[in-house]
Formats: sequence, structure tokens, C-alpha cells
Amino acid sequence: MDENMSVKKSIVRFKDGQFHEVEDVIVTEFPMTIFVNEEEFATMVCTPAHFDEMVIGFLASEGVIRFRKDIKELKIDEEQGFAYVDLAEGKTINNQRDFSKRFIGSCCGKSRQFYFQNDVQTAKTSMSDTKITAEQCIKLMRQMQENSHVFKGTGGVHNAAICTSEEMVVGRTDIGRHNALDKLYGHCLLNQISVRDKVLVFSGRISSEVLTKAAKIGVGIVLSKSAPTDLAVQLADDLNITAVGFIRGGSFNVYSHPERVILAVDQQKEEMR
Amino acid sequence: MDENMSVKKSIVRFKDGQFHEVEDVIVTEFPMTIFVNEEEFATMVCTPAHFDEMVIGFLASEGVIRFRKDIKELKIDEEQGFAYVDLAEGKTINNQRDFSKRFIGSCCGKSRQFYFQNDVQTAKTSMSDTKITAEQCIKLMRQMQENSHVFKGTGGVHNAAICTSEEMVVGRTDIGRHNALDKLYGHCLLNQISVRDKVLVFSGRISSEVLTKAAKIGVGIVLSKSAPTDLAVQLADDLNITAVGFIRGGSFNVYSHPERVILAVDQQKEEMR
Repeated sequence: MDENMSVKKSIVRFKDGQFHEVEDVIVTEFPMTIFVNEEEFATMVCTPAHFDEMVIGFLASEGVIRFRKDIKELKIDEEQGFAYVDLAEGKTINNQRDFSKRFIGSCCGKSRQFYFQNDVQTAKTSMSDTKITAEQCIKLMRQMQENSHVFKGTGGVHNAAICTSEEMVVGRTDIGRHNALDKLYGHCLLNQISVRDKVLVFSGRISSEVLTKAAKIGVGIVLSKSAPTDLAVQLADDLNITAVGFIRGGSFNVYSHPERVILAVDQQKEEMR
Repeated sequence: MDENMSVKKSIVRFKDGQFHEVEDVIVTEFPMTIFVNEEEFATMVCTPAHFDEMVIGFLASEGVIRFRKDIKELKIDEEQGFAYVDLAEGKTINNQRDFSKRFIGSCCGKSRQFYFQNDVQTAKTSMSDTKITAEQCIKLMRQMQENSHVFKGTGGVHNAAICTSEEMVVGRTDIGRHNALDKLYGHCLLNQISVRDKVLVFSGRISSEVLTKAAKIGVGIVLSKSAPTDLAVQLADDLNITAVGFIRGGSFNVYSHPERVILAVDQQKEEMR
């Protein structure tokens, strides 16, 4: 386990009817405040690792930047927990106040289930034609969980990974569900990884916010160990994203666009049912 | 289960090597936008129940109000998902922009681990002298879980309850961890329930934000099924709050102020060790 991602502490354990003093490992939670063009922008509480990815992924997710090149300079003060971002020439955060404003959809025609204005601008409908087999869904979830050492030690974090249908590309761990996703997003932007053909694997529930984040990152398939919400499923329907939940043991549920999940590589599911 | 707290949907389940079309129950996620004195204040995504409690608890938690009487009028449009709050004469949200600003603690002397300015103003050091037995810790966690029907049905929500050492007083369920706590806070304010002698029971992890919320509500003991973070344990140490985690089966861990957790009602733990 990374040294700064958890601390040891003496605690009192109750077990077998008695109190015992034992040493326990507790997951670290660290506040990071982001300044954009010298203005305080946001404070995130996170697992202290991969700060650069998190800051870049968060700013992209909030619609402040679209590419790595939209940032002129990024300085991180790990001691104090400050990130200083200078945007490239011409980029501003003038509209930022509106980003958190609620988006009221059109009353005629099909309105998407977004509720924040910046989501309307940044979440993309998936154009992915990637397919995944049932076996791969189960394998990728297992692979991600096995790769997370912090989780094993302390039980207090969310895991997320970007994968191909075949295998894990990069995994991130954070006490905040959004941070884990922002770190992946930032990693893909920093390393110019194409995401359209990728799969997002996540340990937590698929809320509308998680689904929206997946759409911003640009994946076509989201795999989760847990349950989705109805709003997330509606969004997944609309944004052409395949949402798979409750991957546990050898079974799972497909909540939207099941056409991407097939029984075997050379067989279309339609033929099998 | 409450009808508006979940929906039925036809999904594709993979089980025993095959795809099956089945009907599933999915937890509802609902956006609620709060206007304070006609200005848009915040949008929360929540389980659609106990809106009044959530709005009041959230505003108290943010430091906008302290008591129920600080609100002149509260109107909720459940159809559209809007809450309109008129503050009592003399109350404003002028300082609201500063609330989300980071609080930089003093560099000399003992500085608390807060990172938001409004937390510094609203989180209280506990004066509780309530004690709880090991058996009661385990019983209250079981009682809360058994009371949550939504959780049993859909697996996608957080449960929280205000209890005496003896039994549950009120439980709330929400897809958002903070909402469940805000609803409890609002319930206590609306019904003028004294919280100093109460226990907060929570299904999720004890993050610094959850611990801070417990301090704002005013309880002295927090029981959780899950792990705390190091920042939450530091805050609990400072704020004189007993944080108990990993209550599973017949065992648990006490992370701070173990003096409130005793072996039996008429025995002090100190004598037993």
C-alpha cells in the first residue's frame, strides 16, 4: 500500500465479548484546493495521489478545459494541499457561476435528464461500437478489485478503472467516488488515450452523477459492482451507454443498451436468445 | 417500499451462463433545486421523500439558518422539484459565497482539521455524557438496517438513524449520504428533538464530511457499518465525538473517545480492561 494513502492508529476493538487495544490501518483523506487563474475555484477531499490527473480531470469534467493544452501551467503544492492552474491564452472561468445552475429542459420534445447546465455542454452521446462478453464483464470487475491494495487494507475507498474489453489499462483509487473517476479522466487526457472503445469499471453505485461523468470521459460501457439509480438508467438510455450493475460472483444485470453485451466473442447475443 | 422511491424496469440479467429478461426494482433519484429569498441556492439529487426535512437540515448544515423559526415560509413544488425558502426578517445569505471557501487554520496553536469556513462556524464540540454498551452498538446497527425497506429492495441507498442508547428514534434513507443526514437534522429541528444525548447510526463510511455533519447535528456518538478516514478520526478526537466503525456481526472498532463505549450498563469499561 502507498505510504501516504493510509495511516496506522491505535484503536479499541470489541471482539468476542471483550475490548482489545489493537493497531489499525486507516485510509487517508486530504483536502486539495484548486485555484484557477489565481481565483479559488473548488476544494476537493481526496486520497493524496495522482493530484495532477485529478485536477485536470475535474476541470475537464466541469467544462473549464477540454484538452491538456488548455492549461498553460499546473503547479501543485502537496504540502499545503493547493493546486495552481493557469489557463491557456483566451481561456477563462467567467461562466463558472452558471455551471452549477440547474438546467431546465425543454418542455416540448425529448428532454434529457440533465440537471446542471455544464453537464448539458460536456456530456457526450456515445458513438462506441465496442462489444464485451459476459465473461469479460466478470473478469474485468475481478481484475480491478484485485488490483486495489488500499481497499484490501482499509475498506474505505472507491475503485475505478479504464479497460479494453480484454484487460485493465489503468486503475485509480480514492475515498471520493468522483475523484477516482476524475483521476481516470485526467490520466486519459494527459496520455491522450482514446476512450471511445474503452470500458469504465467502477466499484460504487451508478448514480446520475457517475453516469454523467462516464459520458464526459467518453466511454460506451460502464460496469459496476453495485446498483444504478433510475435517473442514471434514463441517462444511459439517452446517451447510448451500456450500464451493467451488480457484477457479483458469476452474474450481473444489464440496465441499458444490452446490445453491447454478448455471450461469446464471435456470437451476437440476439442469435442466442 | 414507498411507491415513489423506486421504479420497476425490465432488464437483462446474466445468470448461470445465460441472458434472461427479468423485471427489476431500481431506486429513484430526484433533483431538487432550493431557492432562498428568490435566489437559486443549490441543487441536490435525492430520494424523493421528506423534502421539508432535507431542505431545513441542509440550510442548517450550511449555516444559513440555526432554528426552524429562521425560516418564514417553505414551499415545495414536488412535481417540478423546486423548494422556495423565505428567510425570517433580517436573515440573509449574503455571506454564502464565502461558505465554500477553504478555511486555513492558524499556524500557531491547535488548529482544527476543518477545511471549509462554514464548518468552522457550525460544527460544535460535543458536550454529551451519554454512554453506550457494546451490545447496544450492535443492536442499534441491526435495528436501523432492518428498518430500511428501500435498501432491501434495491441495494442502492444510505441509511441513517437518530437513536437513544436504547432504541431508534427516527430513520431516514436516501441515495445521497449527506441527504440522509440532512433529513435527520431537519427532522430534529422541526420536532425540537434534543440531540446531545442521542446516537447517530449510519450505513456508510465516516468521512470528514459525515463526521462534520454529525457535529453540526450535535450528537456525541457516531456508529457506522463501514470504515472512517484519518481526517474524520482527527476531527472526532478534536470535537469530543466517539466514532465507532465496522459494526459487523458481533464486533466493531472504536476510533475515538472510547470512554463512552462500555461493556455493560452498570460497569465502566476502565474497570473491565
